[in-house]
Amino acid sequence: MSSSKKNLSWKHQLHEIIYEADTKKGKIFDVILFTAIITSILLVMLESIESFDTKYHAFLDIGEWVITILFTIEYIMRIIAIKKPLKYIFSFYGIIDLLATLPKYLSFIFVGSHHLVALRALRLLRVFRILKLARYIGASNKLLVAIRASRAKIAVFMFFVIILCIILGTVMYMVEGAENGFTSIPRSVYWAIVTLTTVGFGDIYPHTPLGQLIASIIMILGYGIIAIPTGIVSSEMTRTNNLPTNTQACPNCLKDSHKENAIYCYHCGSTLNE
Amino acid sequence: MSSSKKNLSWKHQLHEIIYEADTKKGKIFDVILFTAIITSILLVMLESIESFDTKYHAFLDIGEWVITILFTIEYIMRIIAIKKPLKYIFSFYGIIDLLATLPKYLSFIFVGSHHLVALRALRLLRVFRILKLARYIGASNKLLVAIRASRAKIAVFMFFVIILCIILGTVMYMVEGAENGFTSIPRSVYWAIVTLTTVGFGDIYPHTPLGQLIASIIMILGYGIIAIPTGIVSSEMTRTNNLPTNTQACPNCLKDSHKENAIYCYHCGSTLNE
Amino acid sequence: MSSSKKNLSWKHQLHEIIYEADTKKGKIFDVILFTAIITSILLVMLESIESFDTKYHAFLDIGEWVITILFTIEYIMRIIAIKKPLKYIFSFYGIIDLLATLPKYLSFIFVGSHHLVALRALRLLRVFRILKLARYIGASNKLLVAIRASRAKIAVFMFFVIILCIILGTVMYMVEGAENGFTSIPRSVYWAIVTLTTVGFGDIYPHTPLGQLIASIIMILGYGIIAIPTGIVSSEMTRTNNLPTNTQACPNCLKDSHKENAIYCYHCGSTLNE
Amino acid sequence: MSSSKKNLSWKHQLHEIIYEADTKKGKIFDVILFTAIITSILLVMLESIESFDTKYHAFLDIGEWVITILFTIEYIMRIIAIKKPLKYIFSFYGIIDLLATLPKYLSFIFVGSHHLVALRALRLLRVFRILKLARYIGASNKLLVAIRASRAKIAVFMFFVIILCIILGTVMYMVEGAENGFTSIPRSVYWAIVTLTTVGFGDIYPHTPLGQLIASIIMILGYGIIAIPTGIVSSEMTRTNNLPTNTQACPNCLKDSHKENAIYCYHCGSTLNE
Repeated sequence: MSSSKKNLSWKHQLHEIIYEADTKKGKIFDVILFTAIITSILLVMLESIESFDTKYHAFLDIGEWVITILFTIEYIMRIIAIKKPLKYIFSFYGIIDLLATLPKYLSFIFVGSHHLVALRALRLLRVFRILKLARYIGASNKLLVAIRASRAKIAVFMFFVIILCIILGTVMYMVEGAENGFTSIPRSVYWAIVTLTTVGFGDIYPHTPLGQLIASIIMILGYGIIAIPTGIVSSEMTRTNNLPTNTQACPNCLKDSHKENAIYCYHCGSTLNE
Repeated sequence: MSSSKKNLSWKHQLHEIIYEADTKKGKIFDVILFTAIITSILLVMLESIESFDTKYHAFLDIGEWVITILFTIEYIMRIIAIKKPLKYIFSFYGIIDLLATLPKYLSFIFVGSHHLVALRALRLLRVFRILKLARYIGASNKLLVAIRASRAKIAVFMFFVIILCIILGTVMYMVEGAENGFTSIPRSVYWAIVTLTTVGFGDIYPHTPLGQLIASIIMILGYGIIAIPTGIVSSEMTRTNNLPTNTQACPNCLKDSHKENAIYCYHCGSTLNE
Repeated sequence: MSSSKKNLSWKHQLHEIIYEADTKKGKIFDVILFTAIITSILLVMLESIESFDTKYHAFLDIGEWVITILFTIEYIMRIIAIKKPLKYIFSFYGIIDLLATLPKYLSFIFVGSHHLVALRALRLLRVFRILKLARYIGASNKLLVAIRASRAKIAVFMFFVIILCIILGTVMYMVEGAENGFTSIPRSVYWAIVTLTTVGFGDIYPHTPLGQLIASIIMILGYGIIAIPTGIVSSEMTRTNNLPTNTQACPNCLKDSHKENAIYCYHCGSTLNE
Repeated sequence: MSSSKKNLSWKHQLHEIIYEADTKKGKIFDVILFTAIITSILLVMLESIESFDTKYHAFLDIGEWVITILFTIEYIMRIIAIKKPLKYIFSFYGIIDLLATLPKYLSFIFVGSHHLVALRALRLLRVFRILKLARYIGASNKLLVAIRASRAKIAVFMFFVIILCIILGTVMYMVEGAENGFTSIPRSVYWAIVTLTTVGFGDIYPHTPLGQLIASIIMILGYGIIAIPTGIVSSEMTRTNNLPTNTQACPNCLKDSHKENAIYCYHCGSTLNE
């Protein structure tokens, strides 16, 4: 019984180190994990540069193996430390953690595992976990509230932009035609998106005067309507910033968010403390 | 009389299905229509890709015919279901609905109907009807109010941008000349719009040092004045967000700007009307 | 004396038609002038298109002459109608009005007047006068107030952007060098402006990995700091929109801009009306 | 003693001229320094233009020497005028001031000092000192407060943008591959930054339909999320603008947020302190 208790406490301690960041050990673990992920990204990046890969292939390969083994140990520890291991294994991060280690092992069994390198890139998604750090910055809280509040409005706007691009792309396909690079409607829609969002690669561009006129209209439109999402987020953040500073709840009916200078509860009429 | 009533009620039911979205059947109709429009757009898109069209021409042609017949039935039903059919026929959507079906039938009569494909693209405009859906999201209501309120200001801004582009384009035509790609004033104005809106295709760009200096000024200008439409919409949306929805004054102390769902005055504690 | 009076009244009437827009005749004059300027711009534009000019040279030339004569008559009438003609002649618009007519006449005397076409482009500056129309829209008033109020802040920002571009351009000149298109510091500064303002022509772009890293930093910087002018104008416009609605002056000390719900004057303590 | 005092006073006077801008002499010194820095930048720029350098090499060289000697005199005077010379010498501006003069002297000793020209470019960093001038404009104060307040939020945003670009770049590397210009992951990440920030050079661009689809998503994303930093700064500046500058409460009724220059309480008419 004592052994079981000790075992539980040992698991509990591991859980605190791996899953939480409040203790000193937990912080050290997070920093090591952070460094390992960054290193792993750098290794994948360097390997993708052909001239670099041919020179330092052995070094990169060893580095990959060290990272893979570290990630494997971490993966096993995560399963041990948690009470419901299946819930973790089939969670979003659980699957990514597995996918981050598997390809390297598979490259051992299958010789022609050249295309499995692609799967290793998913390891990059682990970087998102670092965003947990953002929670401690605190600044992102109000930011997230504002973004979440304006989500619906921005979705409507995005939807409108896509419809606009489909119509404008089709018009440009009819006006310019295949001989000027607008070889198909999807390609023309792609061009319309490139133009409306003011990216302007220049791989496709209008050649006819009419096409240039329509392009001009698209560009001025794109230059103007960018004001809409910006306006949405700006006003939402201004509202979030202005949220009532009177945070007390009514002593009678417990309703909160009273007006800043309220003397009486707006809901039950009781006198508020102050 | 009973037959006439039954007929009316049948027409009324059809009207509810086609023109409204409150009943269950109406919603199903809208979803089917939505799917048909999306499919029709995809078919037009795929047909415009030459390599795809040569392979699956027969399949695409059949798909087009199915969609065309569905749209024709819908068009006839719309005329039957409405009380004033002429008003619908000559309305904006009525004309588009007709144009969405006609070209396919005309391709039957005239053999060389290659250019009529262009007309079929107008079918894409039907997608705008989907925007009706936005009404149910609700979020777009305040958005539309803010955009409508800032319409005049944005028009003045757009007008100013166009004048600026005409003058800057003419100056660049004089500075760079035809040998550097600025072959005419309209083309130079097109370049000025490309540059001021920060699109920057790169099909035309300044070669002379003076031209590059002027281009730099245009770019910094464009980078700066984008703040104007954004500022207009932002402030308008902030104002719209801050509008007090409870506009009554307290019957006792006459204080206003109460909370939206206030029952008692926040200042004197009297009961508010309503 | 009566003749002199009649003459004065005739001049006065002409002044009202030409310089003001309140009377019906004044409005008609403005519309005609507006049309003439637009036509004049279109003629200059069409003339600059070589293929068009060779075909319709005679037609364009006649058009030019008609416009030139109309502008000359207008110029003379303006001098007659005003009390202090010299003030008009040496004013900004007076000089432009003269420059709008002169080149065509000079092309009569000097045969090789090809380069004088350039001067004619200044006629386009007359379009700015149309902006007077904006005054009547009214919407632009608050807009101008907000822009004027944020002028100093935007100037500081622009100054900062230019310094940033000089430093970043020099760094890129050192990193990339002449062999990669960064042939001189001014050219590199031009590239830095193209990149920071997110225009991105693509006539010059980094080739070395280090250059691409620095370019990435410049782009993210440019993407981020555009928030600054936008924030300036947004907040200024929000402030302008929120300007106190209590417009009364204190009956005792005549101070105005009291708080919206003020009962007593903030300056002399007298009771305010209402 | 008198001599020592005189000496001190002489040093004090020099300090006032060089380090402060309140006296008339100090202002003249700042203007001369400003002109010298601008001239020095122009000389470095002109020298970097090959065609210009070959023509006017002697003239540019003399100009460089004059500026170098002036900067040397200024550097020595700065050391004399300050009480703790070492603190200045090892300060940020102290090191830059030294680096601004050294390379020209070193070119005297080492013949092949071609690459030291690079160091001279650091002289450009001196221009930042001009930003001190901004202090007197006053407008930048509130601007800096707002930027400082939104620093944390913008850092989180930038961090998110970089992670997004790494993931999107890797995906594009897998989709497009080396044959379409996406030769390595770092290069693909560079492309993702170019696209997301709406710069769009066009040196690399997607060729496959899937790549163009992903690029479209990146572009619409980039067009949308630019609203976030803009919203952050806008709301922060709105808040800064709305801060009540008179923070005292009325000694009689305790109401606060009086007008900035209020003498009497707007609510009860009592005299305010101060």
